[in-house]
Amino acid sequence: MSSTAAPSARTRLHRLPDRGHHDFATIAAIVDACHICTVAFQWNGSVHAIPTSHWREEGHLYIHGAKASRLLKALCEGEACITLARVDGLVLARSAMHHSMNYRSVVIYGRFEEIVDPEHKRHSLQRFIDGIVPGRWDTLRPIHDKELNATRLLRIALDEASAKVRAWGVKDDEEDLDWPVWAGVIPLQTHFGPALAEVDSVVQTPATPVLK
Amino acid sequence: MSSTAAPSARTRLHRLPDRGHHDFATIAAIVDACHICTVAFQWNGSVHAIPTSHWREEGHLYIHGAKASRLLKALCEGEACITLARVDGLVLARSAMHHSMNYRSVVIYGRFEEIVDPEHKRHSLQRFIDGIVPGRWDTLRPIHDKELNATRLLRIALDEASAKVRAWGVKDDEEDLDWPVWAGVIPLQTHFGPALAEVDSVVQTPATPVLK
Repeated sequence: MSSTAAPSARTRLHRLPDRGHHDFATIAAIVDACHICTVAFQWNGSVHAIPTSHWREEGHLYIHGAKASRLLKALCEGEACITLARVDGLVLARSAMHHSMNYRSVVIYGRFEEIVDPEHKRHSLQRFIDGIVPGRWDTLRPIHDKELNATRLLRIALDEASAKVRAWGVKDDEEDLDWPVWAGVIPLQTHFGPALAEVDSVVQTPATPVLK
Repeated sequence: MSSTAAPSARTRLHRLPDRGHHDFATIAAIVDACHICTVAFQWNGSVHAIPTSHWREEGHLYIHGAKASRLLKALCEGEACITLARVDGLVLARSAMHHSMNYRSVVIYGRFEEIVDPEHKRHSLQRFIDGIVPGRWDTLRPIHDKELNATRLLRIALDEASAKVRAWGVKDDEEDLDWPVWAGVIPLQTHFGPALAEVDSVVQTPATPVLK
């Protein structure tokens, strides 16, 4: 279990430090609240950043992809920076300067390691699927060894990580409080729309994913 | 106006090329559909990636921040990679391997330029605010020159960019189609929650932002 202790030089927050967090519970909760992360890394003389799905197991963030992917292979050769963010609301102030967003974000620095043990891989992919729809793994057509082989599994520790959270109202200048414009927060919420079944789905009752 | 012509070596899609797009209209629409982007860049021996709000003006993506921000200053000194992504649905297949997500994403490579002309800055910030709530800029306490001075405005051309879109149903293996598990897509949708007015807001009727 990762403890994400004192901030490193890279994770210390210089701007708006009142929004910063370094405790594991806050960081883990934000990782869990996001469907995708962005993985940034240096390769071939350029910085690359790719959005990809992820899941968490205790103190690690996991990603996966095709073994044939060039980028995923390159990723293990150097340091990476992973960001996760979700917007929770639009903060509408009385002055342009104080407009903002409520959000939760995490930045992780480190190096990915590849998981090659087939049993670890199988178990982790089960965690991923069951994290989307609890219990779904056991209802699926069992994974073939060939499929497991063709999948590259990577994980990175949440050791050097920081979170930023803004979750409050408008902070206008005192002298602007009586300006005649609406001031407040418009929350942004995510919902599931009606399930779209495949026409040839044998089972008719839709699966129930976990809402993040 | 940017035309985002032929793919560069960095924006050509090697994996799943059927999901790839290089036309400006598709790229611009995805940029407009996202509240935040992630800006990745190399600085001080590390790759950094920061989530930040953005807006688009014709063929450029704009970001802004405090002039005092070290990262924003460092950003103009080298190349950057910007990613934008939103998840539109969970794709639940009959086998683990074919689980996926519907999504829209964009990757942009290039170098930010700073906009220093005060009138350009003022006009761009108005575009940003009015893009969130149409017409709001003119109702706000006018921006002070000091505030404009303290704001750093950067933009990057959408010239070297690519989009990836998955917007369809389940692609299972032919031999798995009769597997007895529900198969389909659960759409993910974003809504505004009830407006949370500041207790001292003079105007009581909430602003109406544009839903992205």
